[in-house]
Parts: sequence; structure tokens; C-alpha cells
Amino acid sequence: MRPQEIIAKKRDGRELTAEEIGAFIDGVCDSSWADYQISALVMAMFIRGLSDTEGEALVRSMLYSGEVLDLSDIDMPKADKHSTGGVGDKTSLVIAPLVAACGVAVPMISGRGLGHTGGTLDKLESIPGFNVNLSTQEFRVIIKRCGFAMSGQTADIAPADKKIYALRDATATVPYIPLIVASIMSKKLAEGLDVLVLDVKTGSGAFMKELCDSEKLAAAMVRTGEHFGVRTQAVVSDMGQPLGKYVGNALEVYECIKILRNEIEPAAMPTWELSLELSARMLVLSGIAADLDSARAMCTAKLESGLALERFRLNVECQNGDAAVCDNPEMLLDGGIMKREIIAESDGFIADIDTLAIGNAICEIGGGRTKAEDEVDPGVGFATELKIGDQIGSGDPIGILFFRNRDQFDTISSKLAGAYSIVQEPSHPIQLIREVI
Amino acid sequence: MRPQEIIAKKRDGRELTAEEIGAFIDGVCDSSWADYQISALVMAMFIRGLSDTEGEALVRSMLYSGEVLDLSDIDMPKADKHSTGGVGDKTSLVIAPLVAACGVAVPMISGRGLGHTGGTLDKLESIPGFNVNLSTQEFRVIIKRCGFAMSGQTADIAPADKKIYALRDATATVPYIPLIVASIMSKKLAEGLDVLVLDVKTGSGAFMKELCDSEKLAAAMVRTGEHFGVRTQAVVSDMGQPLGKYVGNALEVYECIKILRNEIEPAAMPTWELSLELSARMLVLSGIAADLDSARAMCTAKLESGLALERFRLNVECQNGDAAVCDNPEMLLDGGIMKREIIAESDGFIADIDTLAIGNAICEIGGGRTKAEDEVDPGVGFATELKIGDQIGSGDPIGILFFRNRDQFDTISSKLAGAYSIVQEPSHPIQLIREVI
Repeated sequence: MRPQEIIAKKRDGRELTAEEIGAFIDGVCDSSWADYQISALVMAMFIRGLSDTEGEALVRSMLYSGEVLDLSDIDMPKADKHSTGGVGDKTSLVIAPLVAACGVAVPMISGRGLGHTGGTLDKLESIPGFNVNLSTQEFRVIIKRCGFAMSGQTADIAPADKKIYALRDATATVPYIPLIVASIMSKKLAEGLDVLVLDVKTGSGAFMKELCDSEKLAAAMVRTGEHFGVRTQAVVSDMGQPLGKYVGNALEVYECIKILRNEIEPAAMPTWELSLELSARMLVLSGIAADLDSARAMCTAKLESGLALERFRLNVECQNGDAAVCDNPEMLLDGGIMKREIIAESDGFIADIDTLAIGNAICEIGGGRTKAEDEVDPGVGFATELKIGDQIGSGDPIGILFFRNRDQFDTISSKLAGAYSIVQEPSHPIQLIREVI
Repeated sequence: MRPQEIIAKKRDGRELTAEEIGAFIDGVCDSSWADYQISALVMAMFIRGLSDTEGEALVRSMLYSGEVLDLSDIDMPKADKHSTGGVGDKTSLVIAPLVAACGVAVPMISGRGLGHTGGTLDKLESIPGFNVNLSTQEFRVIIKRCGFAMSGQTADIAPADKKIYALRDATATVPYIPLIVASIMSKKLAEGLDVLVLDVKTGSGAFMKELCDSEKLAAAMVRTGEHFGVRTQAVVSDMGQPLGKYVGNALEVYECIKILRNEIEPAAMPTWELSLELSARMLVLSGIAADLDSARAMCTAKLESGLALERFRLNVECQNGDAAVCDNPEMLLDGGIMKREIIAESDGFIADIDTLAIGNAICEIGGGRTKAEDEVDPGVGFATELKIGDQIGSGDPIGILFFRNRDQFDTISSKLAGAYSIVQEPSHPIQLIREVI
């Protein structure tokens, strides 16, 4: 089947067969389709649309184009959580040890950060020595030993996705739900899961800014997960403000270890609340807890007893990290980093936070990447206790910027201050968990 | 302006500004747009459509991205003919010397053949020594000396077109009228013309198989030509059967020289009729003749007096070809070529000819290219006197195949025979000139 014939069919709005979609993905993997042919078909898919049947065929072809983990030798339910990404979104580091401590295996394959959102791998690497490049065999052994493992995606998992995603990013074809679903689900389904809980973000710091779009994405991913035999639920959660207190790789790990130590700062409570909600749903779907209330109680007990922290410590040891961070999370706060307050210039109430602007500002000083090959500075970041609905006075601190040199402060301080809309009328806090699908 | 923003705008069906289209074409020329970005935008243009304003901006950007000839020092009207391509379509070689002999300069920039249609350059190169790679200066000098020149497109003329066309060919975005118009007209308008006559083919051997599509393409090209100040007309002519008697590079040159020698074989009459029609329109639009009848009479006189042949001879000399072909066109018929009849297997009337199949078959044995880098065999081809509406008996010859080795005959003889639909009921000849726009 020539690429042109398949492209022309979708160009004209006709439905592609599973064989045609399979030929496309094979062509991506073996490079017999040129990049310009891939991008032409993807644009035609974007504009003409993909039916549910086509979307499922796309997920299936992308999934089975690569390695699919078989973890059936691990005699526990297997569950994972996936987030669509946000600013200060760090729940993975709390959820994985917590759920593992409750008896569910978490084979967590994560990504690097790109653009304004952070990546779990970058966060983990701020722990000295922590190795995120596990072989499949190491990954399996570590899950058996401590109940979870956190690794980067190998080239063998859903190999078509990496190439297609890079082309979509360059050709304005990212924001189309069936393509997003195929990208996410082809990777997650390769983990050999029984259960998947999705955290679909909505608001100014999310890829999907509108609640209705987030709902549609959540519903499509749940439908796909169920179609492939994985018990799947989605939580639509707010990304209208940074999650928790800290933004920045080392700072976010610090916040998580403080939570695992049950030393939760008030501004970090949303991180714990969302982690608890997602963990509890993983336990219920895994059959470990009968209902959400008992699941929440189980999680809280594992936190308070220190068992979740012990799982985390074991994992850090298994992945060659310095487990001293568990006892002394302050060691993550880099000595070479400067701190300075960002000051409010007017009185009033926080009506709105441009979370994307905060994410981009931190990215700009090295907290994230604009290109895949960029280096990340683990130490830089932002700490804030200010939430939508809070009152603030002129001259009060909005937050604290962690930066490496003075230029960085000058470059982004006004961007951070400008991200906060201060109005005269009292405003209302936002609900963290918007919906469950 | 980032490519993604321009792509996203057209993806969403919005109209691009002239500046945005200019940025796209600049990006094609300076390679700051990647091939996959070009193909994504072109697919979005194909599906979402281009308005007349966008189409004109595209032509303008493509035209002025390269060299535009200024032939104002040549004190004659400048006219050219362009054909959308067909099988056995060879009128350029008759028209250029004929029109030049009537006092109109013809700066003819042509292409190579690709797929089932031949290219004027390939035909000319079957004349020993003929040089089609003229510099702009040589081109100008030769036009002054003999009234016309025939050259390949330099890299300087409409440089964006070559890259975009190659991508369209590979990504199923060729058959969209505004893109076809931009590709053709950006090159033709670069010739510095006063007059352009278009030969838009229709039927089984044309790119546009349906009359209504050919009419639309013709109308769009005429509108564009007029918009850019060139007096433009289009003739929609039949390509439901090969034009004239011969298909194949050297054979087609042979047919043309025989016409210029006024030794027109009956089966070659359509080639002369179409050449005469197109030439006459060029003369009228150029103001050389008052009306079509006097233009036709002028052309016929130049043919019969031998002046058209003399112009051709002068051009062959100027372009380093062996002018002996004018006296002895039989020298074009290669001694190493075998000839064998293709035989009809049933009685009846020719109802239909799959002209594309004939073009492809000749291409397959080296008469044309499937890839731009293929070598062409000038000697192979097909001669036929059979037209739609003719009666034939089982065992009668359909035509004669000119081939280089026996395998070639075995490979395509049944394809050639199969291209002719023989039915019992009498069928009607097709009108050569379908419409003038």
C-alpha cells in the first residue's frame, strides 16, 4: 500500500481500515514513510477526524509496534497513574510509594519535561545518583523488591509515538483528542497494567484550558483503556494555579518527601489531597479496598505509619539514589541557589493565576526545557503559598524565586508578578477536583 | 512568525494574509521551514481550501521568490503556450517556430517528463547535440536570433515550486486547483510574457479526467494570468486518446518535423490542428492578427512556405543540435530499435482508449520516468493510426511498438492492446477542441 493512497483516503474524509493504519505505523517505525508523509497524514487526520474505530486501531498499532511488558510473574495487581501535565504537578512521587505500600505494584514509566510542564524523570534526577534509565529486567526486579519502579521510556516502547509526537509539535497538530489519546495510551498500555487512573488537568496551566475539552479527553482515554481491558478512571483536576507549594525539580521532590514524612506544609496540602484521591481510586479499581473511604483510610495509615516513606527509601536505594534525602530533604536545597521574594504591587484578592506564564518563566531560567536536548537546572524554582481567592497587600510577598544568577531574577520576576491578577472584589477559591469520569 | 502559527491558522480554516503566505514561501526557499512543515500546511490548504485572494498571494510569492525575466529589450510581443500534459502531446515543437515565424517571440521554458506524460526537454534531447540547459543570457540571445528558445527551468525561476511540487507528489496533495495554478503560473509568469495560451487537457490521459475539472482549472489559470497583466486564454482539448500518431521522444520529434516540412500524415492531423488553433490564438492575443481566421491563414502560409521549418532549423543550430534532422527526420529513428505490431483480438469499433495506460506502458520501457533521476530512452515508443470511433477487425494492427529488447515487448504488448476497448456498436469520434475559456 503506497503512503499516497492512504493519505489521499483520509484527505478525502474516508475512514481508514485497521490495515491501513497499521501500514502507516509500520512505515513510521521502519522509516519507509518520510517525515513529510507522516505529517501530511496527521494533518489530514486532524482536520477530517478519526472515528472511534480508527482511534482504537491507531492505539493498537502504536502499542504493538513496540514492546509490551508482561508483568504476570508479579503476583499483585498492577496499577499506574498518568497526568496530562501541569505546573508543580508532582503527585507521582507520593502516589507510587503510597500505593505500593498498600500492596499494588506500580510500574511507572515516565517522561521528561517539555515546555512549561515538568517531567517526573527530571525531578527524580535531582536526587543525587538516582538512575532513571532502567533496563526492562532492572525495572522488573525493582518492582518485585519495593513494589514500584520509576523509569524512562525505552526506545522499545511504542516507538512510533516519539517520532509522531515530535512532528505534531512542529506542525501544529498536537491539540486533537484522538491523537493525544493514541500518544498517551499506547505508552501506558505497554506497561501491562490492570488499572490506570488518569489525572486530566484543566485550566491556565494545562494543555487543555477549557473544562469541556478536558472532559472530552478524559472520557476518550477512559473508553480506550476499558476497550483494551484495563480498568480505567479519570479525575479532572484543576491546573488554574500551580499544584502545592513548589515549582522546580528539586523543590518538588522536597515537597513530596516532606509529605511522605507526614510533615505537610499548609500550601502543600493540595498535593497531598490530589495524591490521596488518585491513590485511593487506584486501590479501589485494583480490588485492594472495597470503597473510596476505606482506601483513603488505608493510604492515610500508610503515610502516618511511615511505611510509604520506607517504600520510597527502598526505591531510592534500588535506583542508586542517595537515600539520605529521606531523612534530610533539606539536602535537596542547593547551596549555590539564591532566593528572593517576588512582591505584590497592589492590594486585593487573587482572581486568577496565569499558570502557564509561571511554568514558562521557570522553564526560561533552566527549570525546564524548550527543546528536548536542553539541560535542566534542578535547583531553580518558585515557592508560593498564594492561592486563588487569597487576599494580598501591596508589598506583600507573592512567593520566593530560587535562581542561580541575578540576570535570571531580572528576566522573570516581573513575569511571575504579572501572572497574578489582583482585583478589588473578593474572589473564590477553586475546587481542586473538578470531576471524575 | 513561527511556522506552527501559520499552519494552525489554515488548519482551522482561516484565511491567510499575503504576509503569512510570503513567510511560508520564504521559509521554503531558505529551508527554515522543514519539509514536514511544508507538507502539513499544503495538506491543510488542500482540505480547508484557498480563497482567490490567497491563491493570488501564493502565485505572487512563488513568482517573486525567484528570477523574473525582463525581455523588454526584445521588441516583439512575447507569447508562450503551456500544456497540462498528455500522451503524444508534442505541439510545442510545432507552435514555437510557427509563431516565431509570424513575428511573436516565444520564450519557452519547459520541463522534463514525469509519469505517463512526456516532457518537451526530453523530446528535444533526442536531436543529437541539442542543448536545453541555456543560461538566461543564452536564452535571450537565441530568442533575438530566431524568435524563440526552448530551455529547462533554471534553479532561479520560482525556486519554491520544485520543492513544493516534489512534496505534493509524495503526500497526495497534487490534485487541488489553486495549488496546480500556483505551480504552473508562478513559472509561466516568470517568463516575462504579454500573452499566454493554455492547453488544458481532459480525458483518460490527462491529469484532469473530467471535463468539468479541466474547465475549472482553465478558468482559474486564465483569471490568474489576467490578474498579473498577461493576456491569457485557455483551450480545453481532448486527451481521451494519444495526440497524433506517435508516442515516444524521438518519434514525437519526427512527427513534428514532418509537420513543419508540410508532410503531414493523416494520423498526425490532430497534432497539426491543435498546434494551429493554439498558435492562432497566440497571434490574435499578441495583436499580430486581427482575428482567428486571418491568424490561421498566416500560420498555414508560414508552414507551406517553409518559413516555420527554417525557424526551427535556425533554433536547432543555435541550441547546438544537428540541423540535419530538418532535412532527414528519419535519422531520428534509431537503428537499434525493434518494431512489431500490436494486434487486435476482436472485431468492432474503438469505443474508448485508456490513454493513461498507454503512457504508463511506454514509460515502463524507458520512454518516460517514474522518478526524476531515471534515464530516458529516446528511441522507444508507439505509433498508431487508430482513433476512437474507428472500426477494426480481429488480427488487424492496433499500432506498432518501438522497443529495445524482446522483454519490453512481452511486458507491455498486452497492456497496449488492453488499452483499446472494442465494442460491437458503432462509436463516435471525439472532438479535439472541447472548449475555449
